[in-house]
Amino acid sequence: MSPSQALPAVLARIDADFDRSLDRLFDLLRIPSISTDAAYKDQCRTAAQHVAHDLASIGFNTTLRPTEGHPIVVGKADSADRRPRILFYGHYDVQPVDPIDLWQVPPFEPRIAEQPDGRKSIVARGACDDKGQVMTFLEACRAFKLVTGQLPLPITIMLEGEEECGSEHLFGFVRDNAEEFKLDLALICDTSMWDPATPMVTTSLRGLVYEELKLTCADRDLHSGLFGGAAQNPLRVLAQVLGAMHDENGRVTIPGFYDGVTELPREIRQQLSALDLTPENFLAPVGLKVPAGEQGRLLIEQIATRPTAEINGLIGGYTGEGAKTVIPSAAMAKVSFRLVGKQEPEKIRAAFRAFVLGRVPPDAKVEFKSFAGAPASEISYDSPALAKAAKALAAEWGKPPITIGEGGSIPIVSDFKRVLGMDTIMVGFALDDDRVHSPNEKYDLTSFHKGTRSWARILAALAEG
Amino acid sequence: MSPSQALPAVLARIDADFDRSLDRLFDLLRIPSISTDAAYKDQCRTAAQHVAHDLASIGFNTTLRPTEGHPIVVGKADSADRRPRILFYGHYDVQPVDPIDLWQVPPFEPRIAEQPDGRKSIVARGACDDKGQVMTFLEACRAFKLVTGQLPLPITIMLEGEEECGSEHLFGFVRDNAEEFKLDLALICDTSMWDPATPMVTTSLRGLVYEELKLTCADRDLHSGLFGGAAQNPLRVLAQVLGAMHDENGRVTIPGFYDGVTELPREIRQQLSALDLTPENFLAPVGLKVPAGEQGRLLIEQIATRPTAEINGLIGGYTGEGAKTVIPSAAMAKVSFRLVGKQEPEKIRAAFRAFVLGRVPPDAKVEFKSFAGAPASEISYDSPALAKAAKALAAEWGKPPITIGEGGSIPIVSDFKRVLGMDTIMVGFALDDDRVHSPNEKYDLTSFHKGTRSWARILAALAEG
Repeated sequence: MSPSQALPAVLARIDADFDRSLDRLFDLLRIPSISTDAAYKDQCRTAAQHVAHDLASIGFNTTLRPTEGHPIVVGKADSADRRPRILFYGHYDVQPVDPIDLWQVPPFEPRIAEQPDGRKSIVARGACDDKGQVMTFLEACRAFKLVTGQLPLPITIMLEGEEECGSEHLFGFVRDNAEEFKLDLALICDTSMWDPATPMVTTSLRGLVYEELKLTCADRDLHSGLFGGAAQNPLRVLAQVLGAMHDENGRVTIPGFYDGVTELPREIRQQLSALDLTPENFLAPVGLKVPAGEQGRLLIEQIATRPTAEINGLIGGYTGEGAKTVIPSAAMAKVSFRLVGKQEPEKIRAAFRAFVLGRVPPDAKVEFKSFAGAPASEISYDSPALAKAAKALAAEWGKPPITIGEGGSIPIVSDFKRVLGMDTIMVGFALDDDRVHSPNEKYDLTSFHKGTRSWARILAALAEG
Repeated sequence: MSPSQALPAVLARIDADFDRSLDRLFDLLRIPSISTDAAYKDQCRTAAQHVAHDLASIGFNTTLRPTEGHPIVVGKADSADRRPRILFYGHYDVQPVDPIDLWQVPPFEPRIAEQPDGRKSIVARGACDDKGQVMTFLEACRAFKLVTGQLPLPITIMLEGEEECGSEHLFGFVRDNAEEFKLDLALICDTSMWDPATPMVTTSLRGLVYEELKLTCADRDLHSGLFGGAAQNPLRVLAQVLGAMHDENGRVTIPGFYDGVTELPREIRQQLSALDLTPENFLAPVGLKVPAGEQGRLLIEQIATRPTAEINGLIGGYTGEGAKTVIPSAAMAKVSFRLVGKQEPEKIRAAFRAFVLGRVPPDAKVEFKSFAGAPASEISYDSPALAKAAKALAAEWGKPPITIGEGGSIPIVSDFKRVLGMDTIMVGFALDDDRVHSPNEKYDLTSFHKGTRSWARILAALAEG
């Protein structure tokens, strides 16, 4: 029986098994696996063991792979010689719970709560990010196994325990074990729905280049009365250099910056412009009114599919109370770039540095530091796997998913492409009001239930070959 | 015995008393009277009381005059009906000490250090500016009192505690008590020597306008992945606005900025160009090479007789270690202007604010704060008191003083002229390498010793009538 033929029974099994799947999620949510806090090291390991045990119960060959930090859970299951071979990535660690006094329930005692509009939700730290989302995929696998005796595809699960604190050891692990994880397609469940009724496939993530620059002029702070006029001021230089990074239309002026930036296909741009993402619903909630990006671009392009340059921090001179007439010796700025398309991090970094060095006057010495460099990752809009996933989601939700880029960066996704040569499809069921990283994090029962059904449909669709 | 007749004995007394005068200066330097930081309010009062006590010991009738800020120390001493009646102005407050880790000694534990060339110096915050300089005058008074039983002239001392943070309450105090302080001549010791061997009388001072501006965009810090591109970034706006304050020739671009700036008379400009103030002897000692002011101007013009615009401080966003992808809600800058000739502070302030407001985009809210506003001030080159002071300095240093404009600002000097109708003679013994306002501020023992002797000679010369 092919996965597609089995799908109706698998979906029925998911429905019938829903209460028990909730119990299993609750068991996982009770483990306070806060990765960033060394005090919870044992609980992180407990969570890894718990998930590994659960994976084994579905039929995965499971190991805890040690790192210098929290272990990575790896589960592998063959399924005849079906294709594509899937790598599913997620994480079992969660964010800290502070401020604890804002929680209406203890964060590690999950319960069902009713939202003001009647929606029922699971409330706990990690309910959504990422334990609830990970469990949608595992429950779909479990249902297939129970109905058909095997998984619909060869699947490898990789669940790390350090996503919430920088994935420090994941990159080396993937690089060191590249042959083992070079499969056909990566799936991730750590993203959002477009809205509670509309599913979404995240087709791209922006890359990131992060630079710090320190400018030094005089070898000491100077009195602006004695030296003002003659002495170069590093704050003036920084303002002039960084103030020149954008033109009056919000476009980045660094030569070569837009190399590799492609225009959206016309139909995708039309889809996006129909989405009704407006300054009123996106910017007004944070006190803003006017999109500040490139003029002539949709708001959603500005945040998702266009590259940016931002000054993330700047400091120099006297910044305390009152007045001090100083010409500082040095000033520092942090600048980052969100990358899209084929923009190359090393070229952007070099172009930025050349832009700065070409503008600093004599007497201004520049030092650079690099903190990040990852290209954008995107899946081609004409990928067959994307089309299958989209069709499967449409079948579950009654409307086609939005396929769209997202503005943030999940660095491991670009490593899946660069190191493992695999595309990643990101589907998730989080909602904008899920309070991810905040007190009273939640995951709607609908997200959990229909999310599980969605993955069953996607796996069946991918297995059709 | 006239002051002139007493002078040899007074000078001998200064020499004999030198070690004790150093002890008295050290006692004052130990009080951390940082006026701009509210945390040091009590220490400022302690410094005022300390100085008042010292003045009383010399025979001044001394009072602490309250203001809404730090008190003003006033000491008065008659001396028969001699003329001119002198108003000596100075300040007992000091600059903050940041960056504290660059100090080689604790800033409020004064000690004698040997410079690389063998000169001996007092190292402490305020060693020069202005505690050391003030004490040269007080020690000269003390020696006269000890030798002759009285001061050589009727002298009123006015020492404020807010010079380093804008003299906010001094102006009202002088205005409100104009009759009390309308004397014949003001003296100030807060300026420099021309070089370690050449004394200087400062004939003009640049004025000062000091502004703080705070830019707020979103009502909270934003994630640059989610909002980057669409959300206005106050650091970008600040860089663009402040980066536009100067053109490529170092000229300030604020409309109307140069109104009231006059050209030097041809013969004065020739005198100045003969002074051989070069980048090598003025900028190289602080690690610089190229004058950064208006192109086509003498270096001495750039620092003394041309107006400037400087960014004195700027802060916003993440400035700690490593990377944080934040778009800050707000950013702050401190900007000051040195004024010359007839430039009007209120017009400059208004022009700057209009310049900023004309450049901020929607979604950037600006708040301004003012910390200072004083026009430039000058004394006539043919003043008889100036000639006497110059002659006295020549006698002490073996060469005539340079008489010249200086780049710094002592805002009260223009009020002495406008409100009290008095000229001010500014003589000081600071050296260019004194690191005023910087870590490891110093005052050479020679400056302190020969400075004290210089004042004794100047007072005697002025008393000759």
